[in-house]
Amino acid sequence: MQEMDAENISPAELRELIRAGKWQEPTSGACAGYVQANLVILPQEYAFHFLLFCVRNPKPCPILDVLEPGETSPRIAPGADLRTDLPRYRLYEKGEMKKEVSDISEFFDESMVSFLLGCSFSFERALMNAGVPVRNVEEGKNVSMYVTNIKCASSGPFASPLVVTMRPMTPGQAIRATQITTRFHLTHGAPVHIGDPEAIGIKDLDHPQFGDPVFIREDEIPVFWACGVTSILAVTSEKIPFVITHSPGHMFVSDLRDEDLTIL
Amino acid sequence: MQEMDAENISPAELRELIRAGKWQEPTSGACAGYVQANLVILPQEYAFHFLLFCVRNPKPCPILDVLEPGETSPRIAPGADLRTDLPRYRLYEKGEMKKEVSDISEFFDESMVSFLLGCSFSFERALMNAGVPVRNVEEGKNVSMYVTNIKCASSGPFASPLVVTMRPMTPGQAIRATQITTRFHLTHGAPVHIGDPEAIGIKDLDHPQFGDPVFIREDEIPVFWACGVTSILAVTSEKIPFVITHSPGHMFVSDLRDEDLTIL
Repeated sequence: MQEMDAENISPAELRELIRAGKWQEPTSGACAGYVQANLVILPQEYAFHFLLFCVRNPKPCPILDVLEPGETSPRIAPGADLRTDLPRYRLYEKGEMKKEVSDISEFFDESMVSFLLGCSFSFERALMNAGVPVRNVEEGKNVSMYVTNIKCASSGPFASPLVVTMRPMTPGQAIRATQITTRFHLTHGAPVHIGDPEAIGIKDLDHPQFGDPVFIREDEIPVFWACGVTSILAVTSEKIPFVITHSPGHMFVSDLRDEDLTIL
Repeated sequence: MQEMDAENISPAELRELIRAGKWQEPTSGACAGYVQANLVILPQEYAFHFLLFCVRNPKPCPILDVLEPGETSPRIAPGADLRTDLPRYRLYEKGEMKKEVSDISEFFDESMVSFLLGCSFSFERALMNAGVPVRNVEEGKNVSMYVTNIKCASSGPFASPLVVTMRPMTPGQAIRATQITTRFHLTHGAPVHIGDPEAIGIKDLDHPQFGDPVFIREDEIPVFWACGVTSILAVTSEKIPFVITHSPGHMFVSDLRDEDLTIL
């Protein structure tokens, strides 16, 4: 599959390729303009408290869709099947990763509830369209992610520190980026912090906990956004007997367009 | 209690008066600048699906706070007690109103989950501050409410048509009102419809299903916002064995300021 094709195929076509085993790579850059989502699947008895965790922490965990117990076809992509239409899944037991698979049909049953949460791909495209640089894209790297000392509001067994992504920008670009991402409240919205990393408990920008470090120029400041990995930390704890998530970068591609998610 | 006092006392003071039985009136106009909320209390087994109903219908049912099962003190008003701090409650069984009381302590137990949902008082004040008239306030009436032919997204046993409030304005004021209320996405946000009532299934503006009719001038058009009464219709069905709500107009007054709810 050539990159040019990947960018221009429809979400339904991409999901068809994935289901047929013909696409196993990350989904970054595929189906330009369409919303991609984090996936979390939990047993029904944990659904209320995880939904409440997301409601209480809308910046890291913006809810795009939640399915009824046992349902597999989301409202944001009619006809899709969450058991087969992501390139790669992770299965955890009591917080420990047990398996990575490309089809979860044999692990999914009538008691499971699926959550689709927003990811930052949508606003990165909006930033670039507005001429604001996105360093990780420029450098062809995964975005830098850090665990902060900010505690999310917990809910039942779900608790996590806030995880953030960081993109370096000039102060002027940071202001413009704040305006642009404010519109995208369902894909993390406005930044949570600008400037001094230590103020939110980040010791060393060169050593992110997830993803890759990027170059920061003399005239730039770090700009931090809430990150969907927060939800993964919340569900992969020893308190949760079983959970399925997407594998990092291997997202669900929905039929929603980026612009469908804007508040104004 | 004089009106002037009511407008200027703090939410904690008002809740204290209510708890002591010294305030039994509606809360409209009290504690100017503070967010008031609709209350719904359900047995725990219905909590996931009602929370999901609200998530799926954020315009009529914007979530301000959801408490853990058995909890009575909301995060948006520490120290308050939802069992005693509203002037009047309604108890329903299978959709039928059984009682109206001023204290629900004897009906509340460890299995109950409380939901606080945004109401339109916040944005009405913002409209008036911006010089946009709010006819129902001018006429000292309850806002006009109508059941539309728009179906909310259902969730488990919860289903309802969308209920809307209507305020007449000139087209120019309607545009300004759209800008202003867009900021208040947690108190119903931007209008859902402007103009022709029949387009959303409203036959006669002079006969609202709830509240009072108001005068519409020659140069004005009706402007419709999603209404919190939608959530009351969704919970008062024969499918739901027991639910407690606030009594219309007798809201919970939180410690949040109107401006805390704005998106930008």
